[in-house]
Amino acid sequence: MGRTIVRGGLVVTAADEIEADVLIEDEKIAALATRDSAAGESWSAERVIDATGKYVIPGGVDVHTHMELPFGGTAASDTFATGTVAAAWGGTTTIVDFAVQGRGQALREGLDTWFAKAEGQCAVDYAFHMILSDVSDASLREMDRLVAEGITSFKLFMAYPGVFYSDDGQILRAMQQAAGNGALIMTHAENGIAIDVLVAQALAAGRTDPRHHGEVRAALLEAEATHRAIALARVAGAPLYVVHVSAREAVAELARARDLGLPVFGETCPQYLFLSTDQLAGPGFEGAKYVCSTPLRPREHQAALWRALRTDDLQVVSTDHCPFCFSGQKDLGRGDFSRIPNGLPGVENRMDLLHQAVLDGHLTRRRWIDLACAAPARMFGLYGRKGTLAPGADADLVVYDPAAVQTLSAATHHMNVDYSAYEGRRVTGRAETVLCRGSVVVDQRRFTGRAGHGRFQPRGLSQYTEH
Amino acid sequence: MGRTIVRGGLVVTAADEIEADVLIEDEKIAALATRDSAAGESWSAERVIDATGKYVIPGGVDVHTHMELPFGGTAASDTFATGTVAAAWGGTTTIVDFAVQGRGQALREGLDTWFAKAEGQCAVDYAFHMILSDVSDASLREMDRLVAEGITSFKLFMAYPGVFYSDDGQILRAMQQAAGNGALIMTHAENGIAIDVLVAQALAAGRTDPRHHGEVRAALLEAEATHRAIALARVAGAPLYVVHVSAREAVAELARARDLGLPVFGETCPQYLFLSTDQLAGPGFEGAKYVCSTPLRPREHQAALWRALRTDDLQVVSTDHCPFCFSGQKDLGRGDFSRIPNGLPGVENRMDLLHQAVLDGHLTRRRWIDLACAAPARMFGLYGRKGTLAPGADADLVVYDPAAVQTLSAATHHMNVDYSAYEGRRVTGRAETVLCRGSVVVDQRRFTGRAGHGRFQPRGLSQYTEH
Amino acid sequence: MGRTIVRGGLVVTAADEIEADVLIEDEKIAALATRDSAAGESWSAERVIDATGKYVIPGGVDVHTHMELPFGGTAASDTFATGTVAAAWGGTTTIVDFAVQGRGQALREGLDTWFAKAEGQCAVDYAFHMILSDVSDASLREMDRLVAEGITSFKLFMAYPGVFYSDDGQILRAMQQAAGNGALIMTHAENGIAIDVLVAQALAAGRTDPRHHGEVRAALLEAEATHRAIALARVAGAPLYVVHVSAREAVAELARARDLGLPVFGETCPQYLFLSTDQLAGPGFEGAKYVCSTPLRPREHQAALWRALRTDDLQVVSTDHCPFCFSGQKDLGRGDFSRIPNGLPGVENRMDLLHQAVLDGHLTRRRWIDLACAAPARMFGLYGRKGTLAPGADADLVVYDPAAVQTLSAATHHMNVDYSAYEGRRVTGRAETVLCRGSVVVDQRRFTGRAGHGRFQPRGLSQYTEH
Amino acid sequence: MGRTIVRGGLVVTAADEIEADVLIEDEKIAALATRDSAAGESWSAERVIDATGKYVIPGGVDVHTHMELPFGGTAASDTFATGTVAAAWGGTTTIVDFAVQGRGQALREGLDTWFAKAEGQCAVDYAFHMILSDVSDASLREMDRLVAEGITSFKLFMAYPGVFYSDDGQILRAMQQAAGNGALIMTHAENGIAIDVLVAQALAAGRTDPRHHGEVRAALLEAEATHRAIALARVAGAPLYVVHVSAREAVAELARARDLGLPVFGETCPQYLFLSTDQLAGPGFEGAKYVCSTPLRPREHQAALWRALRTDDLQVVSTDHCPFCFSGQKDLGRGDFSRIPNGLPGVENRMDLLHQAVLDGHLTRRRWIDLACAAPARMFGLYGRKGTLAPGADADLVVYDPAAVQTLSAATHHMNVDYSAYEGRRVTGRAETVLCRGSVVVDQRRFTGRAGHGRFQPRGLSQYTEH
Repeated sequence: MGRTIVRGGLVVTAADEIEADVLIEDEKIAALATRDSAAGESWSAERVIDATGKYVIPGGVDVHTHMELPFGGTAASDTFATGTVAAAWGGTTTIVDFAVQGRGQALREGLDTWFAKAEGQCAVDYAFHMILSDVSDASLREMDRLVAEGITSFKLFMAYPGVFYSDDGQILRAMQQAAGNGALIMTHAENGIAIDVLVAQALAAGRTDPRHHGEVRAALLEAEATHRAIALARVAGAPLYVVHVSAREAVAELARARDLGLPVFGETCPQYLFLSTDQLAGPGFEGAKYVCSTPLRPREHQAALWRALRTDDLQVVSTDHCPFCFSGQKDLGRGDFSRIPNGLPGVENRMDLLHQAVLDGHLTRRRWIDLACAAPARMFGLYGRKGTLAPGADADLVVYDPAAVQTLSAATHHMNVDYSAYEGRRVTGRAETVLCRGSVVVDQRRFTGRAGHGRFQPRGLSQYTEH
Repeated sequence: MGRTIVRGGLVVTAADEIEADVLIEDEKIAALATRDSAAGESWSAERVIDATGKYVIPGGVDVHTHMELPFGGTAASDTFATGTVAAAWGGTTTIVDFAVQGRGQALREGLDTWFAKAEGQCAVDYAFHMILSDVSDASLREMDRLVAEGITSFKLFMAYPGVFYSDDGQILRAMQQAAGNGALIMTHAENGIAIDVLVAQALAAGRTDPRHHGEVRAALLEAEATHRAIALARVAGAPLYVVHVSAREAVAELARARDLGLPVFGETCPQYLFLSTDQLAGPGFEGAKYVCSTPLRPREHQAALWRALRTDDLQVVSTDHCPFCFSGQKDLGRGDFSRIPNGLPGVENRMDLLHQAVLDGHLTRRRWIDLACAAPARMFGLYGRKGTLAPGADADLVVYDPAAVQTLSAATHHMNVDYSAYEGRRVTGRAETVLCRGSVVVDQRRFTGRAGHGRFQPRGLSQYTEH
Repeated sequence: MGRTIVRGGLVVTAADEIEADVLIEDEKIAALATRDSAAGESWSAERVIDATGKYVIPGGVDVHTHMELPFGGTAASDTFATGTVAAAWGGTTTIVDFAVQGRGQALREGLDTWFAKAEGQCAVDYAFHMILSDVSDASLREMDRLVAEGITSFKLFMAYPGVFYSDDGQILRAMQQAAGNGALIMTHAENGIAIDVLVAQALAAGRTDPRHHGEVRAALLEAEATHRAIALARVAGAPLYVVHVSAREAVAELARARDLGLPVFGETCPQYLFLSTDQLAGPGFEGAKYVCSTPLRPREHQAALWRALRTDDLQVVSTDHCPFCFSGQKDLGRGDFSRIPNGLPGVENRMDLLHQAVLDGHLTRRRWIDLACAAPARMFGLYGRKGTLAPGADADLVVYDPAAVQTLSAATHHMNVDYSAYEGRRVTGRAETVLCRGSVVVDQRRFTGRAGHGRFQPRGLSQYTEH
Repeated sequence: MGRTIVRGGLVVTAADEIEADVLIEDEKIAALATRDSAAGESWSAERVIDATGKYVIPGGVDVHTHMELPFGGTAASDTFATGTVAAAWGGTTTIVDFAVQGRGQALREGLDTWFAKAEGQCAVDYAFHMILSDVSDASLREMDRLVAEGITSFKLFMAYPGVFYSDDGQILRAMQQAAGNGALIMTHAENGIAIDVLVAQALAAGRTDPRHHGEVRAALLEAEATHRAIALARVAGAPLYVVHVSAREAVAELARARDLGLPVFGETCPQYLFLSTDQLAGPGFEGAKYVCSTPLRPREHQAALWRALRTDDLQVVSTDHCPFCFSGQKDLGRGDFSRIPNGLPGVENRMDLLHQAVLDGHLTRRRWIDLACAAPARMFGLYGRKGTLAPGADADLVVYDPAAVQTLSAATHHMNVDYSAYEGRRVTGRAETVLCRGSVVVDQRRFTGRAGHGRFQPRGLSQYTEH
């Protein structure tokens, strides 16, 4: 690929904002130099990208996507092919998706299935977490081997009994194994056993609309499970990462753990920051578009999430991208909210929504990059390569126009789903040009990438739990 | 000065650890490049510093020193000349010292006195905070002007009635002014009014030894004042920075404020991390060497401080360097601990003690640089120029040998004081070569700097309170 | 006085609700017997009071009144004569008023002044706390003597600089003295130094209406002072009682102290439970009727107060009765809220308002008696004699009609003040007949008492700090 | 039975300490009168008990006993006959035992079994809680009927999977039912699922001694379950009572709930206050005597329990009396701590150990009676009849000698078990004479009662959850 120079932009990383030019050699960032330095001016390259008046930022790292996930008798509507194209359009150059161990299956079997799904399909780089659905002596032994292969994080569900659910003993055992092999345990923290009782009661009482999905998945039951996961992790001596935190009471549990100095981490997602039960209670069956778990919460919860993002009680913003079409998928749950496939599309919108949050005064520019690029990379053992712009890092780079105004819409987005969760919302800021390992995959709002450019990224251990 | 290349080291900043070469043009960092890149190999320079096997880190930023401070009828024994040479030896290339407004004096008058003391004397760069001893309509108006000149932080004392002490109304007014002009208010948080009662009672009861200094300055009275300063800052709508936090109960107040999302910050110092009342209760009058305020605490408090440094409830480690010789100064307080000049030497030891903390497992390498370089620079409006190694930053740079073993001692240190607070302590790690704005001030453990190289650094507003 | 039998009522104490008859011999309760017992039926007496369908409760104990208090150039409008008649009408048979030490005065001198004011005037029993305005070696020594005389509680003001204010050193010394002699320190917890700055700023800015009284006396400054008083009490090793708690943030500080097991107590008053800044911001100068300190708070604070009364984080409800007429007194502050005399009338309304709270579901019947009778008596060393109905206790007894409906109004109340803070409010419940030490002072809503029946009650040490 | 007078004692209740004589008519207290009153002196009676120099206190109420409980292949060694005799000797005149619903059984069936065990056997009064082992539509419906019969509290186990264990959905449903019918849900709060993993791991690793019982049942797993039970109760809108709290972390959860004003209550037991892992780690197999669940904790936990008893974060002290003989029962677990029957004897020792706590300065005399008599009666709907000494209450009364010194020992106790958990401990205080509903069952240390005197006590709803 040779040499590329990105000139004239403001380089923004989680740590710095510098007027600097960036030199790329092949797939890597070779050098940064001040704009007017002799060093920088002496550079020559095959390609020069003009970033004047733009930000130059690391490619986004979205550590929570579910491409092609089988769920509730259907499957997430984005394939690795379509989903990673959408990611690229949105300025995200690495996704970490979830391979699934089926019940009674070996981890290897599940992982190989996911390798096969992604192989040759992806427009941007990808890695995998592994969902543990069946903790056993055998699967625990397999964990160690997967860690060695670069699958260094494992997710356990406290929700969805009979599907992904693990009981507290299984979770504890997985955490103990992780304490030994250095993996990071992720939990979906909702008390699924109690929720299922409330679901059955709601349905029996004829409360079948989408908004009841939010009511039965009580905030207190998210907080409870969060507290429990923390307690189990303490007993195991393992670190913990809680996915898609949405309730302020759950945030409070994380903050409490953090005040004790515990290695406990959490992510939230744009839908919890920008949407609420207002959407979930939309007219007719509209609310189904906003059915995801943990559910959207009343608007008052948002302030606690923004605050936690500022105070670092939450470290990461991912998308939990798991799209289902309104027609043909979401409507499996007409008349029974419990059959609505859980999930929202979002992989394309994250970087822009968070930039809007910068303009709205919720975050600094550096914190935007931290939450969307650096911290997720660091959390999951990709940092150095991904999440930053520094000599030696992969040349995953976005020329970002902070002034471009766009209207989010299904009519214009690239995700393979028939609605946008943010339909009609105007945001300021847009990825103009996107490079993934030195290759231009979006060139001034034209897609120039290809399926198969994206490469599997084996990951190291979490860099958040180092001492 | 031309061009300098630092080759072969591991560049460690608060954010990154990269195998990169650094190109300096005149006073600035011009570029970073990967070791083996064509770009880096093409550089030429007058001087090449070999950093193979070493760390290349930003120069330290010590935001709490008191050179030549008049106190208790004597004055701190390091001048700006001697103190900044010691700083350089210890890998610190910027200090922020405290100019003092005397009672009844204009701020300008106090500031000019301190400008005069430092002018032409300093081996490394320097800036000033201003101590407000006399809040009035006039001095509040002056605050605005000083902010415009780059004096952007103001310290108020809740201790030392009759000397530096301000009452809660004065503190509130200063905070209100700061809410308007963007300055950062710093507080020495101890309830001095209550402490003076306890001091008088101790002396009256014949409890006159140095260790009683620690007993009368109760941890609860530090926590109380910390809580009070936070409450006043909330009423004023101003951010707050608490200096030299030593008590775990005070840390708890900061953590509580932080959980509420308040812009409240704090520093601690190496003496609180490495020393304790064990030293203060030393034989004979030995304890006088360890008399400082806030006082050293029982050893159990150290764990809370280390934890807060990890969880970011404390953001900065400074030294509160304020040396008084054991002979002729500290002994003013024989028979009356309240007359022992308050203060310890430390400006030379901070970087090394914190590196030792990395080896001891308390901190990561990046957090070491964050606490000692990046965060203090950011907190006090110097970041970008100071505290990091990035194109465009000042070329304040230390080649640090992480394997060198040294024994701290008054026999070898460069501070102008007749004892070391860490006498005989072996630590691993040492600054080998130190550059300040591109000039080599320490060259492989030979001092090559000069008085007057150090330049006054006007500061911007705190970069910690941005949104 | 001979023997009196109270027959047919439901005896309600802080502990029990029993269908029992009460036998009084002279000034004391001699016996309780079940309604149908042979023992009870054998009683004979000069007087039989029929309490059928009524409650029989202990006489109320109001531990915070200010009869005839000189304040702001005027004096509280109820004398001991008028105020204690009003108390009797309201079912309160003991008040604890505040004797004041003037600046430069001996405690004895202040106390004797108050003894003289009350002597021969009171319709019900009375006792005194002492306000310390001038802590000195001499006044601390006097404290011990007063404790021996039954003045066992001492109030210190963190508000009102230049008037009652004591600084933290003085408060600490008084607490230390109390730690020795067993007295209970009471504090008015507001940061008066900071408040005075806000007052001056408000007036200078033309914010002179009564509602600004509430704004400058910020809730955070009550919480701050509460926290500070607790810290000083911990340092002194003394228990603490915080008067007229109104802010939820102050309640939180008390709850926090209580969770640590500290001997820290608090009272609130009916005005904070039933009134709010809605009244203080009334039209024209109406708000002046509601000016008191601590001030009324926004309505949201009430829930925290009710909760604390249930959880025992607040133990007592007193009135802080300190009436000033709207005409001629409150209007001293027209155009300058800071000159409005601080205080509300209330001694007559407390028992009924709290009974209404029982009906409203805030409190149980027993908790009503606890908060209004038993706990205040216990807190201030009167229990056994006052605050309960048990053999051996003083025969202070109220036949209370739980079904009587009344409308509170200045037109009908007996307090010597030209307005009611609860004008027009309908409440259910009323004292029908009131006995004080065996004498009937209100007989089926006719006043039958006399000035001088009330007797000074020397108090023992607080029964709340026993182990 | 006629009339009995108890003369000359100090009557101590949860509320009062009065020099009074007590008149009993048949089974009830008819009257209390002051010692020297004409009323009291006029009494005549068949029997006069001289209590001069003694306390006269309510009979103890022990709300947690397990007579004849089948457990681990054996059964608790005290029958209702032997256990209630021991209770009487110890000054306890009411026990509330646990009837057990077997898996697949109707509540009625279990309850009738327990009625049959107790019928005609008991020396003192008794009532029943019901253990729910099998929550179903049918058993939930039965709950309502049992409430109407006076079985108003139901216990669910978060421990013991496969035995008594209910999952969170079952617990939630039972709580919802209780929210409707007013019953009080009790939980054994330990995460049994996680504990069973740790048990298996310990045994597999050869850690089979009794002390490992304490290690696997981690304090954090008690705190976790406590937090979870509170969360479920909040979701259900039901009050909660946590049995045998032993870990300070669990106490902290209760205190946190209480600060929120939640109707959450807890008990601890003498073994957690007086014993610790020191005993559990005794030589050889001695520790087996101290195996109970929740387990004994390290000694440091005791301070938190005592504090919570003082601050009312714990309201009740019961015994969890569940004795197994060291020979023939405890030794089922030699070589496998998990097979040691769980439980300690204690019903006879509670009143005396708590009186010792009064002498040791942990509790006031009134708080002793509150924790041991009044609060348990109130908590479980017996107050008025039990737990106090007032006209109309059952004449359950103990003449207690506060000065008698005794040495606790299996050689002298009356419980049917071959060891004492307090062997050799000297305590001061002893029940001399005990009446149960007017009958003397212990007369100056001679047992004068009989099997069958004790009568089943249907209970009302908890008086702690009234408003």
